Amino acid sequence: MQILPPATPEDVQLTRDGRLRHFLDIKGLSKSLLTEILDTADNFRGIGDAQVKKVPLLRGRTVVNLFFENSTRTRATFELAAKRLSADVLNLDISASSASKGETLRDTLFNLEAMQADAFVVRHSDSGAAHFIASQVTPNVAIINAGDGRHAHPTQAMLDMLTIRRHKGAFEALKVAIVGDILHSRVARSQIHALKTLGAGEVRVVAPNTLLPTDIESMGARVFTDLKKGLEDVDVVIMLRLQKERMDGALLPSESEYYRYYGLTRETLSYAHPEAVVMHPGPINRGVEIESSVADGPRSLILDQVTNGIAVRMAVMSMAVSGQTQQNAA
Amino acid sequence: MQILPPATPEDVQLTRDGRLRHFLDIKGLSKSLLTEILDTADNFRGIGDAQVKKVPLLRGRTVVNLFFENSTRTRATFELAAKRLSADVLNLDISASSASKGETLRDTLFNLEAMQADAFVVRHSDSGAAHFIASQVTPNVAIINAGDGRHAHPTQAMLDMLTIRRHKGAFEALKVAIVGDILHSRVARSQIHALKTLGAGEVRVVAPNTLLPTDIESMGARVFTDLKKGLEDVDVVIMLRLQKERMDGALLPSESEYYRYYGLTRETLSYAHPEAVVMHPGPINRGVEIESSVADGPRSLILDQVTNGIAVRMAVMSMAVSGQTQQNAA
Amino acid sequence: MQILPPATPEDVQLTRDGRLRHFLDIKGLSKSLLTEILDTADNFRGIGDAQVKKVPLLRGRTVVNLFFENSTRTRATFELAAKRLSADVLNLDISASSASKGETLRDTLFNLEAMQADAFVVRHSDSGAAHFIASQVTPNVAIINAGDGRHAHPTQAMLDMLTIRRHKGAFEALKVAIVGDILHSRVARSQIHALKTLGAGEVRVVAPNTLLPTDIESMGARVFTDLKKGLEDVDVVIMLRLQKERMDGALLPSESEYYRYYGLTRETLSYAHPEAVVMHPGPINRGVEIESSVADGPRSLILDQVTNGIAVRMAVMSMAVSGQTQQNAA
Repeated sequence: MQILPPATPEDVQLTRDGRLRHFLDIKGLSKSLLTEILDTADNFRGIGDAQVKKVPLLRGRTVVNLFFENSTRTRATFELAAKRLSADVLNLDISASSASKGETLRDTLFNLEAMQADAFVVRHSDSGAAHFIASQVTPNVAIINAGDGRHAHPTQAMLDMLTIRRHKGAFEALKVAIVGDILHSRVARSQIHALKTLGAGEVRVVAPNTLLPTDIESMGARVFTDLKKGLEDVDVVIMLRLQKERMDGALLPSESEYYRYYGLTRETLSYAHPEAVVMHPGPINRGVEIESSVADGPRSLILDQVTNGIAVRMAVMSMAVSGQTQQNAA
Repeated sequence: MQILPPATPEDVQLTRDGRLRHFLDIKGLSKSLLTEILDTADNFRGIGDAQVKKVPLLRGRTVVNLFFENSTRTRATFELAAKRLSADVLNLDISASSASKGETLRDTLFNLEAMQADAFVVRHSDSGAAHFIASQVTPNVAIINAGDGRHAHPTQAMLDMLTIRRHKGAFEALKVAIVGDILHSRVARSQIHALKTLGAGEVRVVAPNTLLPTDIESMGARVFTDLKKGLEDVDVVIMLRLQKERMDGALLPSESEYYRYYGLTRETLSYAHPEAVVMHPGPINRGVEIESSVADGPRSLILDQVTNGIAVRMAVMSMAVSGQTQQNAA
Repeated sequence: MQILPPATPEDVQLTRDGRLRHFLDIKGLSKSLLTEILDTADNFRGIGDAQVKKVPLLRGRTVVNLFFENSTRTRATFELAAKRLSADVLNLDISASSASKGETLRDTLFNLEAMQADAFVVRHSDSGAAHFIASQVTPNVAIINAGDGRHAHPTQAMLDMLTIRRHKGAFEALKVAIVGDILHSRVARSQIHALKTLGAGEVRVVAPNTLLPTDIESMGARVFTDLKKGLEDVDVVIMLRLQKERMDGALLPSESEYYRYYGLTRETLSYAHPEAVVMHPGPINRGVEIESSVADGPRSLILDQVTNGIAVRMAVMSMAVSGQTQQNAA
């Protein structure tokens, strides 16, 4: 399947009066909208700590987890987020179902729309898939991008932003370094967009030349190929997962050599600001990207990111369904 | 597994005072009962358009999707229908589970009944499986047939009837043509029974001789082997899916030859009544049974059928559980 | 994975004031606590017979079914039990998910804990797995053991106790025989602990020498290798499932020879007390452990065990989550 994103993907995400109706990409969203997402998610964080972790915001609504690419962990967080909003959840593994009966993607989408779903959470190995789907099923279904190819993973970026804000406060004063396989990372692209939009003081990427995309500086990030220099005085270190399954061997000599030059250890972390925090989208490869004592140490926010992920997903689902509904009623 | 339907399968579906307690087959159900199903489903259609698509009719009840044959699409519609009735839903893929531990079908059923399930939605590749199961688990569990072998697919037929009635009104005035692989189609058998019971003016089947069952005229349908003659002046065209997986090559020379003689195109559709509507149970094989411009055109009701399918499934599940419960209380 | 249970596993299950906080093993639980579980389950039995089989005890709570070993039947009973407590349920097949991304078990657990799950229902092929997990995720998550290796299957034992008590009353007067593959049975170990703790008059195990563990007499059971002598005058016969998949051929000549010496038939059952009841954890192997006419006969409680299983699982889940919560609040 060849999928091309439409010409101006950012417009598709917003209602005419600028509210969220799909959540596809950080790019194209304003600082005030990202801040609204963070504020909403902050409220949901409180609910997660309560015994009754449920609000009736999406009661009677149907959320379909439409996973064209397997990801138990991401699917689980979206499923929990939808259930805590009181939605009914339908999990569909599309590759395993209609494909075998020869149905086209568009027919599958139209069928699910006809079942009166309110939101699709879409995970796909093709870049642009979520935009394509949003362009097809508008105006009835809110699309949430749960990761599309190398393109974007905006809920991951927003849970990172929530984690940073809850621990470090205002973005303006912060130096943030993103370390690892920038080239293959939809997470890194979304993080850079989010950090720039929210006004982070300085955004750095740290990677070997072979794992850097060519357009990276145009996104507003400072590029480092030396880890120690890249970490110097930063407030936040975001490690990326080494996407072994997406890399071919030629780009990288070996895991142990990668770890030697780009692994986050107590020693390399000492170059960062003394109060720097450490983040990672998980699942972590211990001893490949990060030393266990750092991952499990007092400056690690890795598990807090998971908790924040539920809250952010509750926020974008409820906001997009609400925006979509209001747009249709107008 | 050899399963033989009991002698008078129609009686099994009804309580002593004639209410629905299982939904196994259109055959044996009266015009007034089918009309009650359509009226109930019409009410649920309204709920599907609301923001809170939920009614508490089956709250605290347990619906088990018992799929011995894989069908993501049908399973999804039943799952959504049950959840919109506020039931708890348990999805079981039986082939993959107890079979491997050597449990017999009867033991599996008795175990699920002992878990105090209120309804089983049964999909099975053997004709008569739903009747067999209904004869075993009576009186505690309402059985809904979600397709059994070549025998019946009654919820599909009733969603088709709902779609016809909503668009064309009274059945008496209507000429309806069912086109395609009648021989292998449980859908066609159920449709013919439903149309005859509801008093459709004329029911036609259109197929090559090799795809016609021998008993078809005894069911009250007029038989055509020529598509254009079969479509002449009809108000409703129901295309069937070419069940490639159920056919052996000998019955049909090729897909393209089938399309040439039995495919619904703008040209062949022109033989029907100018306001004829087009239906298909899906998933459609574009360019095999139907031309894309017809499937996506203004006279196509294909996606409306999907929406009506949820409403019909809500109707038969709530009616059968209610009838079963009342029978047991009596 | 090598998992060693901690030194005093029983302590881990209780709060400081002796309430249940995990349910891992019958061993270490007092008679009064087991009786509280049975009393609570008895109350839930009544709910299962009602039309609305639901109580709001775990509303807004999240129960994760964490199955490292496939078991559709056990998973289904826990899923239904959790839903009837109004919990949100997440089903995770762990072997198929994070393993492929190289995540360690501990990281998986910490991630699920960070998603603010309230309880994990754990099934694992390694003895001690549930204890290990309980030692890791304390104090935030209540662990329910749904079967670990050859070690324990405590909810099965408690549903058996509930079934016995509901049909036979006080344990003190009862002679109970457990028949079959004691050696490989986590069920038998848990049953013996439960019967001894609840004060059963006499506990017997009946098996060929090759299927008896060496420590069996130290658990307080009388050992018989002759079925007829072992059944003499007993009030309760508990047949075990022949764990074909866990046995190597050397221990047993053939199924038919096993049946001849250890199968429960009308004839061998006649040696028991005339009002003896027959139980089996299921799924049953007809003609291997038990004659069909006995399994389906008037003295069989096999299906009642299934119904009681839902009630017992509701009881231990609600008690453990409540105990865990109170411990944390203290």
